[in-house]
Amino acid sequence: MNIKTAEILCVGTELLLGDIVNTNAAYLARALASMGISVYHQAVVGDNPERLREAMETGLSRADLVITSGGLGPTCDDLTKETAAACFGRKLVCHEPSLAYIEGFFARRGKEMTPNNRKQAMMPEGAYVLANPHGTAPGVAIEEDGRGVMILLPGPPRELIPMVENEVRPFLAARTDCVLLSRNLHLFGIGESALEDILRERMEASVNPTLAPYCADGEVRLRITARGKDEAEAAALCDGEEKFLRSSPVAPYIYGVDVGSIEAALVPLLAERGLTLATAESCTGGLIAKRLTDVPGASAVFPGGVVSYANEVKAKVLGVDPDTLAAHGAVSEPVAMQMARGVRLATGADIGISTTGIAGPGGGTPEKPVGTVWLGISTPEGERARLLSLDPRADRKYIRTCAASHALYGVLALLQGIELS
Amino acid sequence: MNIKTAEILCVGTELLLGDIVNTNAAYLARALASMGISVYHQAVVGDNPERLREAMETGLSRADLVITSGGLGPTCDDLTKETAAACFGRKLVCHEPSLAYIEGFFARRGKEMTPNNRKQAMMPEGAYVLANPHGTAPGVAIEEDGRGVMILLPGPPRELIPMVENEVRPFLAARTDCVLLSRNLHLFGIGESALEDILRERMEASVNPTLAPYCADGEVRLRITARGKDEAEAAALCDGEEKFLRSSPVAPYIYGVDVGSIEAALVPLLAERGLTLATAESCTGGLIAKRLTDVPGASAVFPGGVVSYANEVKAKVLGVDPDTLAAHGAVSEPVAMQMARGVRLATGADIGISTTGIAGPGGGTPEKPVGTVWLGISTPEGERARLLSLDPRADRKYIRTCAASHALYGVLALLQGIELS
Repeated sequence: MNIKTAEILCVGTELLLGDIVNTNAAYLARALASMGISVYHQAVVGDNPERLREAMETGLSRADLVITSGGLGPTCDDLTKETAAACFGRKLVCHEPSLAYIEGFFARRGKEMTPNNRKQAMMPEGAYVLANPHGTAPGVAIEEDGRGVMILLPGPPRELIPMVENEVRPFLAARTDCVLLSRNLHLFGIGESALEDILRERMEASVNPTLAPYCADGEVRLRITARGKDEAEAAALCDGEEKFLRSSPVAPYIYGVDVGSIEAALVPLLAERGLTLATAESCTGGLIAKRLTDVPGASAVFPGGVVSYANEVKAKVLGVDPDTLAAHGAVSEPVAMQMARGVRLATGADIGISTTGIAGPGGGTPEKPVGTVWLGISTPEGERARLLSLDPRADRKYIRTCAASHALYGVLALLQGIELS
Repeated sequence: MNIKTAEILCVGTELLLGDIVNTNAAYLARALASMGISVYHQAVVGDNPERLREAMETGLSRADLVITSGGLGPTCDDLTKETAAACFGRKLVCHEPSLAYIEGFFARRGKEMTPNNRKQAMMPEGAYVLANPHGTAPGVAIEEDGRGVMILLPGPPRELIPMVENEVRPFLAARTDCVLLSRNLHLFGIGESALEDILRERMEASVNPTLAPYCADGEVRLRITARGKDEAEAAALCDGEEKFLRSSPVAPYIYGVDVGSIEAALVPLLAERGLTLATAESCTGGLIAKRLTDVPGASAVFPGGVVSYANEVKAKVLGVDPDTLAAHGAVSEPVAMQMARGVRLATGADIGISTTGIAGPGGGTPEKPVGTVWLGISTPEGERARLLSLDPRADRKYIRTCAASHALYGVLALLQGIELS
């Protein structure tokens, strides 16, 4: 059959109660979009067989594919497989290879297999079984002409994601006839409303490719989405739109394409230039180092950093002058510059960056309200510092994220020769 | 009216495309649960008036309250208010106080108000307007006997969350007649399946209070949820269930109640004991420091830390013996111990902890596969190190998160006198 539309159905009372954030829905949506499958509805229901059954039937009635996550586990409230089997009027039978695999999974780990794990080897009759090398719950695909396709995936992302990449993509590729390509232009330093004012007409008129803005972690992205009979046709449409944007007034704010994040753009660029970067963090408390080392291969460009929360550490480990600290306070231009220089020298890096500011909720003063952050950057050519004045009513997480993004972007701008206002 | 059930409806093509993760749904679910309002469905639709209208009608048909997030912005694809007004057969009228506020919002920031911002002051006739001190989009509450209540909130969490806490809670408190209290027991060192084997009968039999397990970031939580006519009655039910669990075989694994995270439990405990903690991180790359400084008030117990990704930094900044590095390699017991001691001495902290390991995807060897992590801890009484062997097929993020959690839990266990196996 030819799958054009899908509905994402995430199952779990922990989602309804808000105990966990539904990252699976976002991941599945991106994966389906990349396969040219349109998603018009996402739904979440609890571990309740009646409501789950109703949601599955609704999904099958308005989409070619219903893809679920969760409820395949060993526990008594995991009912997704049983309910899907009922939807298709099939009974559950023991899938011997899965049972053998689950037994092996526990044996390899020297753990005892609990009786409820056997339940995970029961499969709807005639279903495709999707291998799960990262856990004990295999996935399931049920296909029936007239009804559509239902794919059942485990809830934990580290089991779901490899299953989608290795098992679901080939399964669906054989059942789709067009390709949807998306390209994200990453912009920094321009707000969504200003971007919208510049590009509104273009966005309203866009059909194929479509052009849409969105905000994430204090930066803006422009998504180009093109539909084509094959990759080449869709890619050519994306190229044309990107070319237009790079000659528009938003061009100076574009720092990358499909780079995922500032740090993911920065690490390979540093590697390409053969440069290393070190971090001296006060208010960001390790967040910049964490974001750099989220990127595989960071070790080639990031020797390390110092989190100098206390003034004693700024002085002792980074060599910040105690008199400067006393005269100007920790949140000041000269301290930011000395921190950046100090970490550059201590680690032998080519570039040192620093943050010192007030993330809140406490610690603000009339002169230095919450949201005041000094960013330092040091190279063998010298030091400079920039002042950020973030919204004092923003929460601690937002202020730390913004400060880290501005600090990382400062290095990217330096390497790309962009002037920072 | 008396609101017992609610449906959460999040609006935005960026959610359907998976460009952003739906954190609002989780936050709203927790907020509603805390008010004794049950949520049985969450839904996501794009910026499409027909599907949005259909989802709103479905929600009103099966719940007392429909609460939406997103689509209140200034851009042309923000249609939630228009669609909700149509649902209730009301027209949009200009809300002068909101218009004045929006104009002031831009004036205060010295920014020019774009024409499309005026749209944000248009409100359905007879609606309650919910103030938004953090943005330009006010919220809206529409109430109609027979139909139910619809509350429209802005999409950005830093606008939505304060609006819920300050405006929506009192609005709903006047419209509910019972209280639902939840209590989360945080456990570390026991798996969900083992926990389930111990508590299955208790969980299956639980009605009020209910008892349910869930996993998050490599740890397990037990949620007790009780319904009562008032706080006191619900709290007493939670107390009884907690007492039972603390006398059950899972008791030794309980490290906190409603603490949110290991670090959120650790920071106040360190403060209470008047102790300080410093971090020396290799494979976790700043994640431990970041998690500690996520907690407001961390500065009282966390002087700082060092991210020593490169061996030179381990030696130069932390004083790790180069001969030890050469003889045992960076991922080794003696290096973990020297890192912990080094950062303790460099920062003057009472306790030093360290991580050195292989987070992957690259860098594994037959002797030291991906997932091999040494955790060091140093106090004036001495050093020790523990070996973690995490699943080599796990992804980088999971290995880093687990390693950080084990390192932080090691300190908690030390302070609580728990023996680590």
